[in-house]
Amino acid sequence: MYKFSDRIKDLNGTATREIFKLLSRPEVISFAGGMPAADCLPCDIINGIASEILSGNDAKHVLQYGTTEGDSVLVEQLLLHMESLGVRATKSEIQVLSGGQQGLDLMCKAFINNGDVILVENPTYLAFLQIAKTYQANVIGVDSDDSGLVLSDLENKLKAHRPKLLYIVPTFSNPTGRTYTEQNRKAIVELCDKYGTVIIEDDPYGLLRYSGEVVPLVKSFDSNGRVVYVTSFSKTISPGLRIAFACGNSEIIRKISIGKQGTDVQNVGLTQRIVAEYLRRGHFGRVLERNIKVYAARRDAMLSALDEYMPDCIKYTRPCGGLFVWAELPKHIDTKAILPEALEHNVAYINGSEFFVEVDGKQVGHNTLRLNFSNSDEQKIDKGIKALSEIFKRHIG
Amino acid sequence: MYKFSDRIKDLNGTATREIFKLLSRPEVISFAGGMPAADCLPCDIINGIASEILSGNDAKHVLQYGTTEGDSVLVEQLLLHMESLGVRATKSEIQVLSGGQQGLDLMCKAFINNGDVILVENPTYLAFLQIAKTYQANVIGVDSDDSGLVLSDLENKLKAHRPKLLYIVPTFSNPTGRTYTEQNRKAIVELCDKYGTVIIEDDPYGLLRYSGEVVPLVKSFDSNGRVVYVTSFSKTISPGLRIAFACGNSEIIRKISIGKQGTDVQNVGLTQRIVAEYLRRGHFGRVLERNIKVYAARRDAMLSALDEYMPDCIKYTRPCGGLFVWAELPKHIDTKAILPEALEHNVAYINGSEFFVEVDGKQVGHNTLRLNFSNSDEQKIDKGIKALSEIFKRHIG
Repeated sequence: MYKFSDRIKDLNGTATREIFKLLSRPEVISFAGGMPAADCLPCDIINGIASEILSGNDAKHVLQYGTTEGDSVLVEQLLLHMESLGVRATKSEIQVLSGGQQGLDLMCKAFINNGDVILVENPTYLAFLQIAKTYQANVIGVDSDDSGLVLSDLENKLKAHRPKLLYIVPTFSNPTGRTYTEQNRKAIVELCDKYGTVIIEDDPYGLLRYSGEVVPLVKSFDSNGRVVYVTSFSKTISPGLRIAFACGNSEIIRKISIGKQGTDVQNVGLTQRIVAEYLRRGHFGRVLERNIKVYAARRDAMLSALDEYMPDCIKYTRPCGGLFVWAELPKHIDTKAILPEALEHNVAYINGSEFFVEVDGKQVGHNTLRLNFSNSDEQKIDKGIKALSEIFKRHIG
Repeated sequence: MYKFSDRIKDLNGTATREIFKLLSRPEVISFAGGMPAADCLPCDIINGIASEILSGNDAKHVLQYGTTEGDSVLVEQLLLHMESLGVRATKSEIQVLSGGQQGLDLMCKAFINNGDVILVENPTYLAFLQIAKTYQANVIGVDSDDSGLVLSDLENKLKAHRPKLLYIVPTFSNPTGRTYTEQNRKAIVELCDKYGTVIIEDDPYGLLRYSGEVVPLVKSFDSNGRVVYVTSFSKTISPGLRIAFACGNSEIIRKISIGKQGTDVQNVGLTQRIVAEYLRRGHFGRVLERNIKVYAARRDAMLSALDEYMPDCIKYTRPCGGLFVWAELPKHIDTKAILPEALEHNVAYINGSEFFVEVDGKQVGHNTLRLNFSNSDEQKIDKGIKALSEIFKRHIG
């Protein structure tokens, strides 16, 4: 009966969001989402800060309208945060966001006309693919390996398509958990500079490192305003606060601000100030250090369980950080078809095909899956991986 | 250097947002924005509720990811809220929003292809015009008078353009402060039903009534899923909390949810629950009653000052509620050109031309302006209107 827009009429909900609604059954062990552990959420600290703000002189300020660009006290802290990551920026290069994903949406809003090309690593973050659909973009996958994007493939596609944007999650990638090397990052910036393509560096997980050496941000190699860095406090403080930000050339940030004016106008005053105080008082580093121990143990538990239970024909990544392990089953296995069976056995995951763009008109990745380890304790991880391995073994035959 | 999208490359910030940044000078008396009075913000109540939530069993819940549709405790309260407004709805007909404006954006996202027609009252809410531009919609104005939309003009334009959407603020309209009659509302629903046009009923001010009789919502006359009702708690509780919602046919609400998945994913958990508890505990009605007295006195002060100081050739509305008075100066006066002079004299307003779409290819409304009375006390209102009248008199000559 309704005449919906072309961008949305055939669009279904994203797999992670839709599965989220099904996970209210407490007996389900979920490797599906990308949720921080409930015990890692700093409730007491946030409670203390919130109550100071709301009983103090700035209560009226945070409950009133604020600027679209973001609370100035928070922006100051974000500049220090960027400095700690090796990037010097100024106020006009920062836009506070309601979650990192809003940054991806606003970047597409600022750059993409119907049919414009966006390059992505293939596989990539599924929500970005959904966002790109709402802008009717032509999304093309770039091959990747253990060191990052395959540079020859990247250059071929930059040359052939002159894409407006390249979208990457270069550190503890979603979904594969892999990290691009420093050399790969430099080369990506140089190539994109050469072909006039803007890079979105999405980095929600970078600070969740459990082993290995820190690799500099892609943004740190950016001398020509080519890289817009987007990060979020959803995995490192709390997703419910919805505080994230973008850091990039001020001309791009201005367009993002104008785009944000036309949607949710501004971020929540209270949660902006909570995060500002949380950073200013040094809770960020302290709590992160504690949480990293929790997640490292869970990653180890997942890798041990995979090593113990999974048959040799199943391959998986061994990430140095982030929230995900990526697994590949034999070609004849369709992980999407098996998902309902897994849910019946109270285990959830996301089938890998959700993260791929088509290659030569064909859907790929049907034999892959993403496993999240942050939101289940070691016992549950062991139990869940064991149950999954039994299901997979039956299908592999 | 950057190849921005067609939708955004020529777009400047909205007048209200841009002027917002200039208003940090405390000596400026601002009639520009639509901000609630600082003293009307219920800081203590919100502080008490926030601290109960963050120290209670649900702290982890509100700081974790939540559903896109909205916190279920809040949704229950919103259904009761709708019932109090004369509309019975179910859960699947509600989408929680980060501010009412997000609802307008998501409605365009769900319905509008490039070039699709949207009808609006002329003048209308300027942010909606900005949003429509980001969807490259063809926005056409419908004439209005003291009883609402001019029905013959509406029908002619429905017939000629078969618009996807009609956008209206029928109660204490932004910018004019006028309210459509019950009869006019019924006729609008009937006409839109006949021509298959969906109505966005934007109602941020409806509960801020200082005089006159309550008029039923446009939504209350909707028997065929034609009306999507959007309201916000920005003017009645706090804008900084960013809590609003849409109520409409579940098929449309589903598309809005999918659209929201692709931008900010979900609302802030904490502020959703704060509003839920605020409503559940009955603070809403009590605080509103108190605030209405404050705003009624300010409206009266503004009308008295206008009566006293403005020359007879300046006409203005006498609104029964809301936040705005709309004024019309002699044709030879350009209120946009005078604005810098007003700012020099420490008075701000929004020039009316910002609220108009072109008529027959011509920009109209150059001699109009919008005056907000909620955010200044009676003394300041008197002083500001007096100063403005002197400036206007000089120009009228």
